[in-house]
Amino acid sequence: SGLVLVKNPHLDSMEEDVLYHLDLGTKTHNLPEMFGDIKFVCVGGSPNRMRAFAQFMHRELGLASDGEDVTDICAGSDRYAMYRAGPVLSISHGMGIPSISIMLHELIKLLHHAKCRDVTIIRIGTSGGLGIEAGSVVITDMAVDSSFRPRFEQVVLDDVVVRSTELDKDLAEELLACSREIPDFPTLIGHTMCTYDFYEGQGRLDGALCSFSSEKKLDYLRRAYDAGVRNIEMESTAFAALCGLCGLKGESCRFHL
Amino acid sequence: SGLVLVKNPHLDSMEEDVLYHLDLGTKTHNLPEMFGDIKFVCVGGSPNRMRAFAQFMHRELGLASDGEDVTDICAGSDRYAMYRAGPVLSISHGMGIPSISIMLHELIKLLHHAKCRDVTIIRIGTSGGLGIEAGSVVITDMAVDSSFRPRFEQVVLDDVVVRSTELDKDLAEELLACSREIPDFPTLIGHTMCTYDFYEGQGRLDGALCSFSSEKKLDYLRRAYDAGVRNIEMESTAFAALCGLCGLKGESCRFHL
Repeated sequence: SGLVLVKNPHLDSMEEDVLYHLDLGTKTHNLPEMFGDIKFVCVGGSPNRMRAFAQFMHRELGLASDGEDVTDICAGSDRYAMYRAGPVLSISHGMGIPSISIMLHELIKLLHHAKCRDVTIIRIGTSGGLGIEAGSVVITDMAVDSSFRPRFEQVVLDDVVVRSTELDKDLAEELLACSREIPDFPTLIGHTMCTYDFYEGQGRLDGALCSFSSEKKLDYLRRAYDAGVRNIEMESTAFAALCGLCGLKGESCRFHL
Repeated sequence: SGLVLVKNPHLDSMEEDVLYHLDLGTKTHNLPEMFGDIKFVCVGGSPNRMRAFAQFMHRELGLASDGEDVTDICAGSDRYAMYRAGPVLSISHGMGIPSISIMLHELIKLLHHAKCRDVTIIRIGTSGGLGIEAGSVVITDMAVDSSFRPRFEQVVLDDVVVRSTELDKDLAEELLACSREIPDFPTLIGHTMCTYDFYEGQGRLDGALCSFSSEKKLDYLRRAYDAGVRNIEMESTAFAALCGLCGLKGESCRFHL
């Protein structure tokens, strides 16, 4: 049916659903009216960038307003920022798996309550590239953990549940085809490694703590490259797992600084 | 010596240290001049709350300015917000372990470069209480993971390193004594459970996904209570581990909404 799935039998019996971190709710807002026509959701870490992206989409789509005055739909909360441009929502998710997970739970419920259909969600932003030209964009075919395994371990109460982290292959190919229409826009499809830590977890030598040598770092990054990893960031496994389970067509495209 | 310790032999040979997510650096800023007299650092999730806290400290300390015009020291980055009030720094860290870890790595290096001495760091904010009166403040003696173990598993490259999550017991007692001077300020010392997820990880029945029954949730929370857990949040194990390793006297005090 193209609807967004929630997989929670408790939701039906709830009188009200408060999307706390988005400052929205089923009793305080008419979600179908506000969001029912949304077809694309683009998410990224930084609120300023997601505002700039919404303004860019306003101009690209030739909307009546040029987007200079876009307003933050979640202005009552400073956890996330949300803007819209026609059928496109642009939302920030902060840094790391826990932060994007909270946003995605509430976004998925938002799209469900709003009865949205055939929604595509794309994660955009920057990442560290691995053995690729600076300025390249990596489209993720599969998110992998720090041991290069295509899996996301979700702790549910005190059990560990393993979830798949495959993304939509057709969408990846479609995005790659789009990139080829733009000159000088190096784009590739590859695995994306997702870590819980930016410094010790990604082999950086400039954190407050560092117990490994430059050689050990390079050995690790080389093994990651050999396993098909082309970029490293901090949200893709949770993003892939949640989108996959809830029937959202999802992709991640990251620009290598 | 009371100095903040960095444990990274590579730092000495770096010509410049860019604290990227704080928009500060050793070449662009005179860190000893800007921060050398800092004695307290208070950190919390929300940027707006940390701004309000800095303004509150301005008034409490009777500083010349009333703090209404405090400016964000990290204004060039939208990842974190930082304000100062006399010897107190007030910084936001976003939500979850990965987000607070990035901030703490850069904060610890900041305090190190600034040659700060005898710095106390206190995490403030809200959390979910467990079997305690709403409005209570929990001072953490020990942060525990979702299996109630006092440990933080840090992934370093692809190794897992286990770190201690004990906090400063003297500081906890000192804060408890302070709370007793204030009427009607229910405060207790207890364990704090730190999870990677707000919905499935904390037994909430209102996420986009929920595979457990209300009974299973209650059984889990009861076992947590029996293990000494009095509140649940998403940053304490990483906070305790990093502060402990770097010689920062740290505590976590959270208000149960």
